[in-house]
Amino acid sequence: MVDLGARSYPICIGAGTLERLGPRLQELKVGRRVAIVTNPVVSRFYREPLVQSLKAAGFESTVLQVPDGEEHKNMAWLAFLYDRLVDARLDRESAIIALGGGVIGDLTGFTAATFQRGVPLVQVPTTLLAQVDSSVGGKTAVNHPGGKNLIGAFHQPRLVWIDVATLKTLPRREVQAGMTEIIKHAAILGPQLFELLEAEIEAVMALDEALLIEVVRQNCAIKAAVVAQDERESGHRAVLNFGHTLGHAIEMLTEYRGYLHGEAVAIGMAFAARLSHARGLCEASVRDRIIALLQRAALPTEIPKELVGRHLALAVEADKKVSGGKVKFVCIEDIGRTKFVYLTGDEVLGHAGGTH
Amino acid sequence: MVDLGARSYPICIGAGTLERLGPRLQELKVGRRVAIVTNPVVSRFYREPLVQSLKAAGFESTVLQVPDGEEHKNMAWLAFLYDRLVDARLDRESAIIALGGGVIGDLTGFTAATFQRGVPLVQVPTTLLAQVDSSVGGKTAVNHPGGKNLIGAFHQPRLVWIDVATLKTLPRREVQAGMTEIIKHAAILGPQLFELLEAEIEAVMALDEALLIEVVRQNCAIKAAVVAQDERESGHRAVLNFGHTLGHAIEMLTEYRGYLHGEAVAIGMAFAARLSHARGLCEASVRDRIIALLQRAALPTEIPKELVGRHLALAVEADKKVSGGKVKFVCIEDIGRTKFVYLTGDEVLGHAGGTH
Repeated sequence: MVDLGARSYPICIGAGTLERLGPRLQELKVGRRVAIVTNPVVSRFYREPLVQSLKAAGFESTVLQVPDGEEHKNMAWLAFLYDRLVDARLDRESAIIALGGGVIGDLTGFTAATFQRGVPLVQVPTTLLAQVDSSVGGKTAVNHPGGKNLIGAFHQPRLVWIDVATLKTLPRREVQAGMTEIIKHAAILGPQLFELLEAEIEAVMALDEALLIEVVRQNCAIKAAVVAQDERESGHRAVLNFGHTLGHAIEMLTEYRGYLHGEAVAIGMAFAARLSHARGLCEASVRDRIIALLQRAALPTEIPKELVGRHLALAVEADKKVSGGKVKFVCIEDIGRTKFVYLTGDEVLGHAGGTH
Repeated sequence: MVDLGARSYPICIGAGTLERLGPRLQELKVGRRVAIVTNPVVSRFYREPLVQSLKAAGFESTVLQVPDGEEHKNMAWLAFLYDRLVDARLDRESAIIALGGGVIGDLTGFTAATFQRGVPLVQVPTTLLAQVDSSVGGKTAVNHPGGKNLIGAFHQPRLVWIDVATLKTLPRREVQAGMTEIIKHAAILGPQLFELLEAEIEAVMALDEALLIEVVRQNCAIKAAVVAQDERESGHRAVLNFGHTLGHAIEMLTEYRGYLHGEAVAIGMAFAARLSHARGLCEASVRDRIIALLQRAALPTEIPKELVGRHLALAVEADKKVSGGKVKFVCIEDIGRTKFVYLTGDEVLGHAGGTH
């Protein structure tokens, strides 16, 4: 449950639950017409069970497909979705279901945030990254040539429906990349989850269902608590940017092609752990535990040599969270405890050469 | 003041106050860069005093112009604004100022709602309609071929800055149309304001500044109280639709060209008053007082003959507030008291032939 007063919503986690969404949707008291937004890859696997479940519960679904890939999270596809929602005669009571990964969730979420000034949104994330991070918290957006997620809104879903069985069709590399955010949530706020990962990360990555459900549950509880405390990222929520300042800079310099988001953030977390130790904020053991866990998830932990240099410092400062020339950098003090440090890009990257 | 907890904001009303916005903006603690969105007509009169006031207070303004007219409240001009905001390097702390009427307010408001997931918005309405209605309450939107205001968001401004002196350059017909919403607010919730209008409407329309300030103040207090009670129009706020159900239908059938919004709503209010009396909900005197006041404001009060018929009933049912085939129609019981009645389009229009 994400506790946001009138905007509170449940996060339901299970295995093989996709075909049970219909009855749950009835409880939300939304209109009979629903739209499902997905991509061709996800559609092939999961469209039919979902549509059938909705049909059996009395809903009439329109399925809308957006091509796979971050480059389609833009205003052109947003306009496409608005047009199709009008064609399908969706009204203010109609729910829109995002069935897919982060791109589908962000684009669909922003569509739901703005169609008719906001309609009910149901997140059905099918990638690990979306299940443990982007589907929870209400951040929605599309990209703009001027910046990633530059156009967006906060629009909390009415329900997050996580079926970990959908991860079976996910490419291995995306399972690894999704682990980054779990490790992040554990490192900054969940020492217990961190220890569970230290004990079992290989089994989690082998998609042991009971273990996955437990890890996703603990992970989402952490994320939900942060969101409940600071829905619109005016303060505390910024702890979630652990690893992201450098991660975003790496993504930007490699034009969102060289690394998956989770891979870039893994490098960023390892870097933040080293910087925290170098500045005397944490023990070497804290740094080493974080890096070791990332490595066990087969994630990269070193800044690629070709990126080290002045342009990386500039890219760090180009991040939109910069305020007054200083980056609000998330450092770690211990597993489960963070500290904000305000640094210039050069101050951040002064440590880039250092190894542990 | 619109009382919305953390999203509360003041409505400042005066005459000749445009050149005093700079110092007030400083108090909001927004970034140094601001954007002013306006249209060429308003820009000619008011751009310079506003820019100078902001400059004197240490702000750096970018002025963005959108052509005048409802047909420009669309996604193409929205995209234009996003591009220019990126060019001007506006960030999350930057305020966007809407300087103009309802079109500028709605379009700019939606831009501010969605740029960087929401940036500070200041409404500086320069038409009577915008001053007494659209600038207060946080409704923002753009049109879509599928419907007026179909794409939008609720985004409360940080400040509403009303300078009634700007009405001096407003065409007479728009002053009249703006009176509609004042009469509406008075009829549904402000018996005291209604009496003030009955005593002084000619002087108000002659733009007597002291009277205007008092009328706009009372009017905005009514609107603010409704918004505070029901920010997102989930219930009570629907009283503001008094006159709007039929008004929207008339606008739709005349393709937003035959009548100004306020004129169509005036017809709708006169109609709703007659329907309320015909259904035994109010005295004939209540109906007559509303119609008389509208007529003193030189507003139309009869459905144009060529629109009466089956297509008007269908247009009423096409309104987006319809739920389950019935329109939530706002009837009046007395000056200051309303009642929701659920009717089909035919039930509404069954009274269309009746005269008072």
